[in-house]
Parts: sequence; C-alpha cells; structure tokens
Amino acid sequence: MILRALIVSLLAVGTIAAPPAMSADEPIQPIEAHKPKNENMVELGKMLFFDPRLSKSGFISCNSCHNLSMGGSDNLPTSIGHKWHQGPISAPTVLNSSLNLAQFWDGRAKDLKDQAGGPIANPGEMGFSHALAVDVLRSIPEYRARFKQAFGSDQIDIGKVTDAIAAFEETLVTPDSRFDKWLKGDKTALTQTELEGYKLFKESGCASCHNGPAVGGASYQKMGVHEPYKTASKVEGRFSVTGKDADRFMFKVPTLRNVELTYPYFHDGAAPTLEDAVNTMGRLQLGRKFTKDENAKIVAFLKTLTGKQPEFKLPVLPPSTNETPRPKPFE
Amino acid sequence: MILRALIVSLLAVGTIAAPPAMSADEPIQPIEAHKPKNENMVELGKMLFFDPRLSKSGFISCNSCHNLSMGGSDNLPTSIGHKWHQGPISAPTVLNSSLNLAQFWDGRAKDLKDQAGGPIANPGEMGFSHALAVDVLRSIPEYRARFKQAFGSDQIDIGKVTDAIAAFEETLVTPDSRFDKWLKGDKTALTQTELEGYKLFKESGCASCHNGPAVGGASYQKMGVHEPYKTASKVEGRFSVTGKDADRFMFKVPTLRNVELTYPYFHDGAAPTLEDAVNTMGRLQLGRKFTKDENAKIVAFLKTLTGKQPEFKLPVLPPSTNETPRPKPFE
Repeated sequence: MILRALIVSLLAVGTIAAPPAMSADEPIQPIEAHKPKNENMVELGKMLFFDPRLSKSGFISCNSCHNLSMGGSDNLPTSIGHKWHQGPISAPTVLNSSLNLAQFWDGRAKDLKDQAGGPIANPGEMGFSHALAVDVLRSIPEYRARFKQAFGSDQIDIGKVTDAIAAFEETLVTPDSRFDKWLKGDKTALTQTELEGYKLFKESGCASCHNGPAVGGASYQKMGVHEPYKTASKVEGRFSVTGKDADRFMFKVPTLRNVELTYPYFHDGAAPTLEDAVNTMGRLQLGRKFTKDENAKIVAFLKTLTGKQPEFKLPVLPPSTNETPRPKPFE
Repeated sequence: MILRALIVSLLAVGTIAAPPAMSADEPIQPIEAHKPKNENMVELGKMLFFDPRLSKSGFISCNSCHNLSMGGSDNLPTSIGHKWHQGPISAPTVLNSSLNLAQFWDGRAKDLKDQAGGPIANPGEMGFSHALAVDVLRSIPEYRARFKQAFGSDQIDIGKVTDAIAAFEETLVTPDSRFDKWLKGDKTALTQTELEGYKLFKESGCASCHNGPAVGGASYQKMGVHEPYKTASKVEGRFSVTGKDADRFMFKVPTLRNVELTYPYFHDGAAPTLEDAVNTMGRLQLGRKFTKDENAKIVAFLKTLTGKQPEFKLPVLPPSTNETPRPKPFE
C-alpha cells in the first residue's frame, strides 16, 4: 500500500509538473533573456557595433551587414563591403549568435570575440586594420573613458574592442516568440496549422539538425545529402578551415530563430523565400518532396519562431578629435 | 535718501531680473523642442528614414549619410552612394534642418518634404525610383497598416512617404546646448574663454550670417568674399538653381548647431577641423586673420552649440514578403 501510494503520488506530481509538451520532450528549447555581467561593457560594445569609424571608409559598421532593424542581417544574397566589394557569402544573423557552436558559416571563429575582429580587417568587408581601428578609438576621450569604466583601464587594444562587441552581441537574444510561449505551456499560442507544421518539421527530419534553443547552430552538416547542391558560389564550407575532403560543403546549420526576418536563405542567399528554402531542404537534405500544403504548414510554423527583437536606444557616438585618423573612403 | 534707496533697489532688481545678455539682445536664439502633431506619422517616418529598402541596393538608407549616431551627417568630405559612387558634395546635417530657409546646399528643395524624395531617386545616392520605393512599401502589410494609422488611408504614394520622413525630421532638433542655457539666463553655463569666443564671433562679423536659432541656415552667401575660394569641387551653388551669374558660388549658410559633430566642413568637406574652418572663414569672408588665441576662443564657443541629441529606440522594420521586389545591389 505504501508503495502503491508512492507510485500514485509520483504519477500525480509527474502530471502536474509536466504539461503535454514540455520543452524537455521537444527537440527545441525556449530562448531565455540574457542578463549581462558588465553593463558598461555592453553599452560600449553597442557603440562600437554602430561605429563606422571601425572601417577604412568611415561608412561601414557591424550594423551595416548585421542590421538590428532587420533581423540582424542585411537581407541581401551576399553582402556589400569596402568600395562595394561583393562578398562571397550571405551574412548570417547576429541574433542569438551566442548560441552557435562556432561563428561564420564555416565555424572558423570559435566564439563571438574571435569573430568580431574578422570583418574589421577583411579587405572586402570593413577594409581596415586592427591597429588603425584602435588608433581611432584611442584618439577619442569619451571612448577612453568608457573603456576605463568597462575594463578598469583606458589602455585600448583590439582584445578589449572585440570583448566589448561580443558582450553586446550576447545580449541580442530574442525570447518570447509564439513558439516559445507554446513550449512554456500556453497552448493557445499556436494555431492548428502551425502545430501541424511543427509536427511535420519533426517527423520529416528537419529537427534532426535544426534543434536546441537556436533551432540550429549546434552542428556542421553537408549541404546536399540526397543530391548535390547546385550553386554558382565558390565557397566550400568547413573544408576551408580543416582542409579535409570530408568537410567539403559542410556548413554550420543556421539558426531558424527569426527566420521570417533573415531572408534570403542558405550560404549563397539563393533561396529568396521560406517556401523555396523548405522545398530545397526537403529535396536535398531529406530526399522528400513536400506537397504545397505541407510546405505551407512548415512555413507557418517557422514564422512562429520570430521572437522579441532587441530594444535599445540608438547610441550617440562621441565625435572624432583633431588627432583622429580620418577615413579614406575612396582609397 | 528715498531716491537713493530706490536706485539701489532698482540696481539690485536689475541684477536679479535682467541678466546682461537676454536672447532678445543676441543674434542667436535658443532652439526649442519640437512637439509633433501626428505621432504615428513621426514613427512611420523614423522607420522609413532607417529603411535601406528605399534604395536600389537595399543597403543605403537616409541614415547612411545622415547618421543620427554621428550628428546627422556621415563625417565624410563627400558622401558615398549607390555602387560606392563618390558624391559631389558634403552631406549637410539633418539635425535642426527644419529651421533652414530651404534644403540642400543650393536650396533647390523648398522644404524637408521636397528634399526627402531627392536622394531616393538620385542614381548616385540611393539609385532607386519613387515608383519602385512605393512598390516595396505597398507589398509589406505592416507598412500599409502604419500608413493607414498616420494618414487615414493605406494608399501609399511618394507624397505620403516624403510627408512622413519630413515629419520625423522635424523632430530632430537639438535643444539644451550649453550656449542655449546661457542664453536663457544660466550665467554659469559658459566659461570665460567661451564667452570671449562668442564676443569675437559677434564683433568680427561671423554672426552677420550665422545667426538665428540655427546659427545659420537663413540666407545664401557667396563662398569667397574677400578672396576666391580655391577648391577642386565643381559645384557652383545657387547658380545651378537660378542660372543667374550673381548666384555663382552662393551657398546656403550652414547651421553651426552641433558643429563639433559635423566635421569635415564646407560644401566640399575640405576643412577637416574647426580650427581650419574658422581660419578660412575669417580670411575669405571677413578679410581677417584670426590669431591662434582668437581662433581657439571662437572654437571653444562653437563647441558650446552642441545640443541634446535626438533620443529614440532603433526602429524594428517589418520584413519583406514574397511579393516585395528584391534589392539589386550589383546592377
């Protein structure tokens, strides 16, 4: 009897504590808001993220290609860099990027700090150098004061610059999507069509790569499993980092959070719409042709992944001084 | 004795009630905050101001060259446009631009609404057309809803687009500079050096053109009065609007509000620092060579004209739909 009572009460506890679809049972977990450890560093990082003086031209900031008004991306197939250089790849969203196993499509940067230095010194992106970017910041008294506040020292170096940018980027998570509300127990948060789309997403195999809180970002996978991916892009993915043949066309699985906002899709930006992207993924990765109705349901589900966008005041940047090196936009 | 007491008390009252320099006696008047008539229109205009989809490339917004993080300008000698086109002229600040007698350096637009359509359709700026910009906006349900809120109709046309942008730009005034605090009676707001700079600014003739609330913006004047202005720029100022020989090299006097933030100076952006600009203006416009000390005092005064920068949340823009025409950055 004692044993039976124990089992019953355990079951009851189980029933109360576990609504039908707890995120523990699901391949996707909710995004949680980020609590920054160092507010001064976040504020400084936000200023740096918006400051075009980190580019040779004085025209391109992090926000140019990771536009926080537009889902943290530029919504272009491939990005525009210094002197209108056409980039080789589609800019991934910065939103929720702290959840990725590594940064860039090929994972060549181990974290956000490692990533942040890349575009500044890339001749086809911001076209500058770390030394010159640091010279600009050192010449501006308000920046020196803010580095002092954030780091306890006004000695500016590229390590502190990328630390601050990464600290800001870590705040760019997007909780409270309708899907997350549903995951957390609000069964009215999704429509029947959206739920059917989610079921299809799981059953047809999308969730085997697109899972976790970011609905992606957790593994590298080959682009083109059941048939090769046809593209004009010369980018070879993870192969360019490891040099291993097995890594050819392996790319980091992109997050599907806010995917409604981050068109066009794939590393080459070749899929202009979610419908295109779902069809291509089904065919190439799962060997499956979705019907129009199935496609529409999956797309409806994907649009429930749009979370609360980061909300903050546009930063006001301190002016250059007579000592600040001037931008060279046409060199 | 009664008379003497009266005089003494009058003097005392005078000291308290009428500070030596009320703004009515001064050539410069304080900037006042703007109270918008239609908040929905302002909010819509802010979104449009930040939306790069009003450009052919999908990369350039109003804020690209009138960067509200950087004094409403791009801080470049001349601006960068579609496909990195080098513009012919230095982007004037959008801050306090509602106070100008007309828009553009040559005054070819009568007001902000008239101005706002210019860059969108200029092949060397945003490179788009009014019809295509309107097509983009019409394809986005949230924009249609916001035009309906702002105008009572969701029929979008370029007139409404430029009305909304102008309504937002009217809010971009910068009150509460230290100089304005001084004008309003706070005699501790300026240092002795700054006050001496202001005295020099008035006595040497700067204030004969740089006056009013915007400290400029109220007249056209010839660039190069006492000697001709030497420049590589081919721009001819007001002449290109009127075709009159007398208008050759006549330019709208730029506002000096926030001038610390709006470097480099002049229509060709040829003066990198305030010190350069003051020297050149003294020599060419006033026939006067300022000493180093005089120059420093005037510069100190000019830096007191930096007002409270507009403060608002970065707008979040609604995503394009499958019907939205896609940008063409490399065409």
